Amino acid sequence: MYELGVVYRNITRADRAAADGLAALGSATVHEAMGRVGLLKPYMRPIYSGQQVSGTAVTVLLQPGDNWMMHVAAEQIQPGDIVVAAVTAECTDGYFGDLLATSFQARGARALIIDAGVRDVKTLQEMNFPVWSKAISSKGTIKATLGSVNIPIVCAGMLVTPGDVIVADDDGVVCVPAARAAATLDAARKRESFEGEKRAKLASGVLGLDMYKMREPLAAAGLKYID
Amino acid sequence: MYELGVVYRNITRADRAAADGLAALGSATVHEAMGRVGLLKPYMRPIYSGQQVSGTAVTVLLQPGDNWMMHVAAEQIQPGDIVVAAVTAECTDGYFGDLLATSFQARGARALIIDAGVRDVKTLQEMNFPVWSKAISSKGTIKATLGSVNIPIVCAGMLVTPGDVIVADDDGVVCVPAARAAATLDAARKRESFEGEKRAKLASGVLGLDMYKMREPLAAAGLKYID
Amino acid sequence: MYELGVVYRNITRADRAAADGLAALGSATVHEAMGRVGLLKPYMRPIYSGQQVSGTAVTVLLQPGDNWMMHVAAEQIQPGDIVVAAVTAECTDGYFGDLLATSFQARGARALIIDAGVRDVKTLQEMNFPVWSKAISSKGTIKATLGSVNIPIVCAGMLVTPGDVIVADDDGVVCVPAARAAATLDAARKRESFEGEKRAKLASGVLGLDMYKMREPLAAAGLKYID
Amino acid sequence: MYELGVVYRNITRADRAAADGLAALGSATVHEAMGRVGLLKPYMRPIYSGQQVSGTAVTVLLQPGDNWMMHVAAEQIQPGDIVVAAVTAECTDGYFGDLLATSFQARGARALIIDAGVRDVKTLQEMNFPVWSKAISSKGTIKATLGSVNIPIVCAGMLVTPGDVIVADDDGVVCVPAARAAATLDAARKRESFEGEKRAKLASGVLGLDMYKMREPLAAAGLKYID
Amino acid sequence: MYELGVVYRNITRADRAAADGLAALGSATVHEAMGRVGLLKPYMRPIYSGQQVSGTAVTVLLQPGDNWMMHVAAEQIQPGDIVVAAVTAECTDGYFGDLLATSFQARGARALIIDAGVRDVKTLQEMNFPVWSKAISSKGTIKATLGSVNIPIVCAGMLVTPGDVIVADDDGVVCVPAARAAATLDAARKRESFEGEKRAKLASGVLGLDMYKMREPLAAAGLKYID
Amino acid sequence: MYELGVVYRNITRADRAAADGLAALGSATVHEAMGRVGLLKPYMRPIYSGQQVSGTAVTVLLQPGDNWMMHVAAEQIQPGDIVVAAVTAECTDGYFGDLLATSFQARGARALIIDAGVRDVKTLQEMNFPVWSKAISSKGTIKATLGSVNIPIVCAGMLVTPGDVIVADDDGVVCVPAARAAATLDAARKRESFEGEKRAKLASGVLGLDMYKMREPLAAAGLKYID
Repeated sequence: MYELGVVYRNITRADRAAADGLAALGSATVHEAMGRVGLLKPYMRPIYSGQQVSGTAVTVLLQPGDNWMMHVAAEQIQPGDIVVAAVTAECTDGYFGDLLATSFQARGARALIIDAGVRDVKTLQEMNFPVWSKAISSKGTIKATLGSVNIPIVCAGMLVTPGDVIVADDDGVVCVPAARAAATLDAARKRESFEGEKRAKLASGVLGLDMYKMREPLAAAGLKYID
Repeated sequence: MYELGVVYRNITRADRAAADGLAALGSATVHEAMGRVGLLKPYMRPIYSGQQVSGTAVTVLLQPGDNWMMHVAAEQIQPGDIVVAAVTAECTDGYFGDLLATSFQARGARALIIDAGVRDVKTLQEMNFPVWSKAISSKGTIKATLGSVNIPIVCAGMLVTPGDVIVADDDGVVCVPAARAAATLDAARKRESFEGEKRAKLASGVLGLDMYKMREPLAAAGLKYID
Repeated sequence: MYELGVVYRNITRADRAAADGLAALGSATVHEAMGRVGLLKPYMRPIYSGQQVSGTAVTVLLQPGDNWMMHVAAEQIQPGDIVVAAVTAECTDGYFGDLLATSFQARGARALIIDAGVRDVKTLQEMNFPVWSKAISSKGTIKATLGSVNIPIVCAGMLVTPGDVIVADDDGVVCVPAARAAATLDAARKRESFEGEKRAKLASGVLGLDMYKMREPLAAAGLKYID
Repeated sequence: MYELGVVYRNITRADRAAADGLAALGSATVHEAMGRVGLLKPYMRPIYSGQQVSGTAVTVLLQPGDNWMMHVAAEQIQPGDIVVAAVTAECTDGYFGDLLATSFQARGARALIIDAGVRDVKTLQEMNFPVWSKAISSKGTIKATLGSVNIPIVCAGMLVTPGDVIVADDDGVVCVPAARAAATLDAARKRESFEGEKRAKLASGVLGLDMYKMREPLAAAGLKYID
Repeated sequence: MYELGVVYRNITRADRAAADGLAALGSATVHEAMGRVGLLKPYMRPIYSGQQVSGTAVTVLLQPGDNWMMHVAAEQIQPGDIVVAAVTAECTDGYFGDLLATSFQARGARALIIDAGVRDVKTLQEMNFPVWSKAISSKGTIKATLGSVNIPIVCAGMLVTPGDVIVADDDGVVCVPAARAAATLDAARKRESFEGEKRAKLASGVLGLDMYKMREPLAAAGLKYID
Repeated sequence: MYELGVVYRNITRADRAAADGLAALGSATVHEAMGRVGLLKPYMRPIYSGQQVSGTAVTVLLQPGDNWMMHVAAEQIQPGDIVVAAVTAECTDGYFGDLLATSFQARGARALIIDAGVRDVKTLQEMNFPVWSKAISSKGTIKATLGSVNIPIVCAGMLVTPGDVIVADDDGVVCVPAARAAATLDAARKRESFEGEKRAKLASGVLGLDMYKMREPLAAAGLKYID
């Protein structure tokens, strides 16, 4: 299904304000605001914790054990982008280290999302360049076979189209289609605005059973209490 | 990224002759003819061996532990279709058994490709209804939450668009975009036409090293023979 | 939680007629009749296909890489029993082969369910002794450390109490508590009695959407058809 | 095997002093003191490191992708409890986040042990609410199907009865049956009291071979030294 | 640790009679006769069941997604050899199909053991060429990077030296060092010669507890029977 | 293939200066300098991050669930060694905790690499004793069956010969054969010496495409840019 050997230079990035604003909401709230779709598989984990970012996707399709296209992708990065990388087969090799991170950072990239492995993780943390990956591995890669840049790719089970918004934090990685970025931001903010009040109630000892009026539907579903 | 709660009734199916013709080539040859793309992850296995099919994709997006949309999908099946099912989260439940298979078969479906579990596998084999799945499980499902039918889905790591051609056999499952079906059929047939001669040579003891003229490039790459 | 080094000789087996009758219904129907509980994890697979059995559980808790207690369990087998084996840690060793199978079969055992590995699988098939296991492995085991026989065990994620009914086929393995065996048999037969009529309708082209009257609830849930 | 749709309100909790005292010993020592049983599978990991807790189990059985019963469980929490959650099928969804944690903490819960996923992990750490889980995932859950509260459940391969003592730290999670809590505390303290002396000897260069008098049994077992 | 880009042409194969004779014993008996070492990890499975072979190892080290060295290996095959293939990284690609099998068979190879994937499995079965592999996958491979032939390799966790004897059947794959082949054959035959008598006793209802005189050591270990 | 029940007391350790010097280079650079071989599988992870060590291997082969040979290995440790442990079958038990770590540290060991589990991880971090392992588990082990010390072992898929150099950090674990230690150190230093300049260029915005002169070979391979 993938088109190989092509680089799309002109992609339509999501609205910048929406793309930037989604970071503050976090992946769980954004995922809810989207109607519970868009999440990459939960094996995608941050290489160090505490990061929370959003940005527009530049996509790259890699060949197994071959990171040639990462260099091609670097040129397509604009400030505010997040590079999203998939491989044509399962692979845990370390496609990305401190040198590529230096280049990506110099181009304005905010993070890397890669359905494979990375290395130099200590240095990446010192550089403050966040990565979400499937694996960490010292194994390097060759530069021999073409993939593509800025085509739609499947990364960790989710379709990512160039220009989509990526939201990533310690809970995982969510992809928001460019066309829905602004609406999702609104919906996510709305969700969040209710959370403070709820949290205060729950902290005071009010039960979710009462706050969400669950007792009646639970009884209707047949729940029985036994003393 | 997924649109939930929708059923697209009018999809553009791949050319029928191409869709039907690809079965004879098999998934490995078709995958090669596509330039080594389009393969679903190899954890997708036939529930019984020896089947080789192709057909046009009707897609269905399911919710975890919920097979409601399978019944919605049944109505969209036309003779020659293969149903391709994905779930919004990892799930091994048995979404599909002999009753649904009876319905799918009555509608003209040739097979099911499902990134989840199925059950009644003994009966499915007796019915001669092939399935490629991630799991086999007795666990049934509920009918409570909407997914979608005939939207583009990611199944076992591969994007499948309604109307694409699916080719499946004991080696795995390949998705051929509708627009490339005819060209892929040609390319695959060409590949296969060379195989008989090659096989005869190899069977006579000629080495691939000589038949493919590999000795020179191997030496150029530095291969050393040690006695 | 486990009591080690004990063998309970007097266990209360489920009603024999119910225990025997459940085989014909199969694991999927029994699982449904139980209200969708009781299923062992789907990684438990038959070592050869086409078997469908039920019987009363004799349980055995094994130590990793040690099958000593299998011999202790053999003495507790009565005709109509199925041995259910768990290990105190994850292990894929081959705890069971043709010799133990000969002994179990001589005692009247109908099958083995083991959350570990077995070996001599070719011979086991020739002997017609069915096994559901997590793995197949040539690796033998020692006889050095005590486990227990006929205590409640957790096998592949499910609690199995001695005397419970085990139902196993190509779809998986279900555990029915002894006290619920008769009621489950009734419920399962009732479920099955409806299936013939349903199958005939579906085979004639009637859709599940109509047969199960799903169109209204689907519309109520918001399903939209797009032409 | 599970009873669905029930909440047991009166459970017998383990002796409070024993339940509280076990935290200081840690999961490895407690596991040894129990005779090497009671450990949940090692895929259960803390969402942040450095926590060491013990408490009495309130159990909850959840449905896949559905956290309705978590709210029902909240009402059954008493100060000093640890909530232990299992799902009727494999699931990595994020069943639990900062709002539920606020409620659980307000009720006096010390921790959550869940054989599934959680989210808002950064906030959970800030709240100092420890969780041991199988996964971290942004994916939210619905509230549609009944499970149960305070029935015996299998969590990560181990049977947990309401009122049992849970001991959890960076090494894993152990379940101590309520009836054995006091005896286990004694045994664990005894084990630990010997450790200081042993550690000092080993630190001074004495070998375990000599301290534990292993040379003779090793020779008896046939160990050979080759120079 | 691996030497890349080399082909050793002169390897010392195990004694032919011993290498040939071990097939009849099977992997489980051979593994026991070796003192329970030599087994490849149990994820190595036959692509079709019922095969039982032995032969001398020709080894090949492959690069991920690259089967170039398979053709180099073909030339080193002598009648009675089994090709054992490892990859420098985890890979499930289909390195081997019917054409290579034709060539291997023409050279006298008896089987392939590969810690990766293969394809054309239906044809391989028709050709009666047995394969034990980690995966089945339609995905083809390139021919671009050197590995080695006839160096010691680690295949599925086990060191295999060129010339060692490989024994493979439905229970798994065992590697017997060339120097121990004859002694292992003797030991395995001795083991097997006792089995007939044991089997007869067990079939007549004699318990292993009595036949192996286990009752006393079990009692000494503290086993308690409870009525 | 393994020789059981033996301890080799005199092993040839790699050149001390080379063994010590490789730590500073890190596993990724050393792996590249070796020609991309020698890496243990990436499931080997540090129990706490930020450590970077190298040393000479003392190897130990363990039996499943049995850490007896760890005590035998302790005696063979010399200052500057790293203990590398494998098990004859897959096992996640906690073979190693604070007492053994105290002993190893007293003997001069710098780290443990173990293809199994460890426990007391909090204390190990406080002791500053780094471990790379497959798992963390409270589960203790027995002392009943012989393995071996200082024989060649396969650890996490890689052959490790006693005296080889181990390099481990947050990116993984690499094994350098003793005979290649000095040459690898030279090659790794050379690699690293070029990195500063490259990093500066990339940081200034120069693209890898230009720095590595990739544009021409990419075009030759057929890469197409689409506006």
